[in-house]
Amino acid sequence: MYILSEEVNFILKKYFVDLNQEEIPKYLLIEKHIKRLIDTNVVEDREKLPSIRSLARFLNVNNSTIVNAYKKLQVEGYAIQKMGSGTYAKKKDIHKNFNREYSKALKKIFNEDMVNYVDFTGETPSGEFFQINFFKDVLNEVLDRDGAKALIYQESLGYEGLRNSISNVFWNGKVDKEDILIISGAQQGIDLISKAILNTNDSIIVEKPTYSGALSVFKWRRTEIFQVPVEKDGINMDKFEKILKKNNIKCFYTMSYFQNPTGISCSNDKKIQILKLAQIYDFYIMEDDYLSELIYDNSIKYNSFRSLDNNDRVLYIKSFSKIFLPGIRIGYLIPPRKFKESIQNSKINTDISTSSIMQRALDLYIRKGLWKNYIETLNDAYKKRYIHMQKCILKYLGDKVEFIKPGGGLHFYLKIKENIKMDSIELFRQAKNRGILITPGLLFYKNSLEGKKYFKISFSHVNEKDIEYGIKILSEIIIV
Amino acid sequence: MYILSEEVNFILKKYFVDLNQEEIPKYLLIEKHIKRLIDTNVVEDREKLPSIRSLARFLNVNNSTIVNAYKKLQVEGYAIQKMGSGTYAKKKDIHKNFNREYSKALKKIFNEDMVNYVDFTGETPSGEFFQINFFKDVLNEVLDRDGAKALIYQESLGYEGLRNSISNVFWNGKVDKEDILIISGAQQGIDLISKAILNTNDSIIVEKPTYSGALSVFKWRRTEIFQVPVEKDGINMDKFEKILKKNNIKCFYTMSYFQNPTGISCSNDKKIQILKLAQIYDFYIMEDDYLSELIYDNSIKYNSFRSLDNNDRVLYIKSFSKIFLPGIRIGYLIPPRKFKESIQNSKINTDISTSSIMQRALDLYIRKGLWKNYIETLNDAYKKRYIHMQKCILKYLGDKVEFIKPGGGLHFYLKIKENIKMDSIELFRQAKNRGILITPGLLFYKNSLEGKKYFKISFSHVNEKDIEYGIKILSEIIIV
Repeated sequence: MYILSEEVNFILKKYFVDLNQEEIPKYLLIEKHIKRLIDTNVVEDREKLPSIRSLARFLNVNNSTIVNAYKKLQVEGYAIQKMGSGTYAKKKDIHKNFNREYSKALKKIFNEDMVNYVDFTGETPSGEFFQINFFKDVLNEVLDRDGAKALIYQESLGYEGLRNSISNVFWNGKVDKEDILIISGAQQGIDLISKAILNTNDSIIVEKPTYSGALSVFKWRRTEIFQVPVEKDGINMDKFEKILKKNNIKCFYTMSYFQNPTGISCSNDKKIQILKLAQIYDFYIMEDDYLSELIYDNSIKYNSFRSLDNNDRVLYIKSFSKIFLPGIRIGYLIPPRKFKESIQNSKINTDISTSSIMQRALDLYIRKGLWKNYIETLNDAYKKRYIHMQKCILKYLGDKVEFIKPGGGLHFYLKIKENIKMDSIELFRQAKNRGILITPGLLFYKNSLEGKKYFKISFSHVNEKDIEYGIKILSEIIIV
Repeated sequence: MYILSEEVNFILKKYFVDLNQEEIPKYLLIEKHIKRLIDTNVVEDREKLPSIRSLARFLNVNNSTIVNAYKKLQVEGYAIQKMGSGTYAKKKDIHKNFNREYSKALKKIFNEDMVNYVDFTGETPSGEFFQINFFKDVLNEVLDRDGAKALIYQESLGYEGLRNSISNVFWNGKVDKEDILIISGAQQGIDLISKAILNTNDSIIVEKPTYSGALSVFKWRRTEIFQVPVEKDGINMDKFEKILKKNNIKCFYTMSYFQNPTGISCSNDKKIQILKLAQIYDFYIMEDDYLSELIYDNSIKYNSFRSLDNNDRVLYIKSFSKIFLPGIRIGYLIPPRKFKESIQNSKINTDISTSSIMQRALDLYIRKGLWKNYIETLNDAYKKRYIHMQKCILKYLGDKVEFIKPGGGLHFYLKIKENIKMDSIELFRQAKNRGILITPGLLFYKNSLEGKKYFKISFSHVNEKDIEYGIKILSEIIIV
């Protein structure tokens, strides 16, 4: 006999399924049954499923029936396979349905008229401070200068002029233009890196909470995701190192400034510590340099992981779309030399290259100093809103929420105090009905339950008057 | 004992490895040894490797050592894992090195001065017939009309105006604008679809030969790729159906007009047959509508798979960059309703959205009738080159190569006759030294060996005089 008696008992207890329903394929019956067992917690999250052979013998079906059932479970996100070890149950995220509700609600509203809403969900600057005429002049200058070439010629790393400007203006020449790859934004950067260096079942660490768009890519890539809580100066280092000790970590994804959603910036001390650990435990840091241009608190000094790195451990991602204008779709990536070729190939296989005319326009815009002026304008304007929003939160929500001052960026991350029953899903729904849009915290966690007391409010699309109005409404909804 | 005696013998013969080299981790020794066995054909392509447990016992190491060795083999492309079945050897493609040589050589030349070369490798129209001033006017009109909005506002499916124009101008309103997703080109379309509907180890069929950029995506996605030879009116249907019968195929990737590289267009009869089979065997057709605007032979009537489909079986991909100007980076995708949401999410996770200003410009360009005029100009100009290139091939290479007349598109696919010893790698190298660039056929095959007698020459970047000059040089190199 191949099956040990305890395994038989285990299977008997947990896996009994009636296979005499002729119209439905057996593998589907088995799959459905196991799904129910997982949903109802009879089989727990990460519990090992019986081996294919033993379950097949027990149910008196072919091995391939079990293989198909397990494959279906995997496809539906109910199981993961570990090489040489077997198949494991995976609990479905109970809040997945809310994510869908949330994005559907926003889509619907955005497609209608936004005028009736106070929109605290903005992720990027609005265009209100952007002088479109300057950009128009730049675009025309490019077309006069380069002609059709501006729309044809494609360099494998991106337009050389722009790479030059990035090297000179943003890195003081300390990064070689040949080490810069032009991409279409941070989201693409995360996708390209994942394709080039992450394989199925590789392990990565992310901050808790973190950017949901990154989580999606890593989940899609079927990596094993570990989360480390963010504290007021960056991640919890003890928990971080504990995970590094126990697991073979390939990559740590982090937003180094005004992290999305917490607004926290990692301290230089922690950055240096993390870089050391990267060398010891042989992992790489995927740095998403998010909104580091918008610093309102002068005590914050800007140092990216990339600028502190001496060992080629950082995959640096920068989006121009976030701070500039989302519709331009340009960003750049500086990979370690080791990954340069594979990430470049990853770009080619993903979308060949980024719009060459927009690269030329952005280059000229930077070289004319327009970029610098624009960022200064944004800084002034958003600093006012930042201060105002903070005041309003303290005034109207002071006894209802807790938060850490970010000192920059475009948003606040608030926690509804423990003694208040309301969660942020309920808050989202009620606020929406009263014309206020917020982002509930659950979107930023691997297990969304952890985010249910949190919500994010951004001031990028809301003027001072509406900030006050919106927060007042929120305070009416959140009842102690 | 767990190991059967024949398995012991098998392992003894094939897997003997000296594990007493203390400085190197055991799993690496084992991995290196198996790699050598695969390279030297002791273990053949697709041969099953011993089970983890039996090999571990035999070598007296931990299971995890073998797991790590097999993982490394997988990462390096020397093994694939099949769920519930084990790990299988995978032979490395012997011509992979040439692909690298080829792309490096082209990169180097493109970065230098192209003036000294006759470039037969062009994949897209050059800008010489494009009236940049018209485009400039359109761009300015968009900026005057929409202001900063042109650079900010992002719709989840892409700019509504452009989707409207596509629906009206290219589909006579028969495709709903809500079923169109704007993307940044065909390559992105292939990538998005693969992410949304293909899982590791899923099976797909491609044409033999096929577009290398598609092959890369499918390989990267770790799908099982089947190839069906292309004949003069499309794929070989017997071979196609044989594969469908034996395997669970998820998708068939095809270029329906002037296929890259063969230049062949699939007949309507075959298209209808393939659509029927899709319904019977439950697979989907990924249609890359490649250059169908450039038809020189009036007997060719344009019917895409998408326009013949009644069962929502086609994932239609169209690139504007290919026919228009590569630097614009715009295309669109029409998925079956069933996949609409997952492909849209795939787009968001890949790069959020496509440059909104370029979408607006293209929309206006189409609506003003400029697109139609431009395509007519291209048709006239390229038809002349097409006829001229065909004449030159017959005149100078008539006794050295065979080919099928494509009747449209931008290139010819030539086969060096069997009695001639030269292969296209040698031809590429010698031609390059004499200032002529061609594309060797090996790039278009899963096993590149099959393409070694073929090469592709495109007339998109070469005027009539240089076409004649270049082909004359090729005829001097190819010696009977």
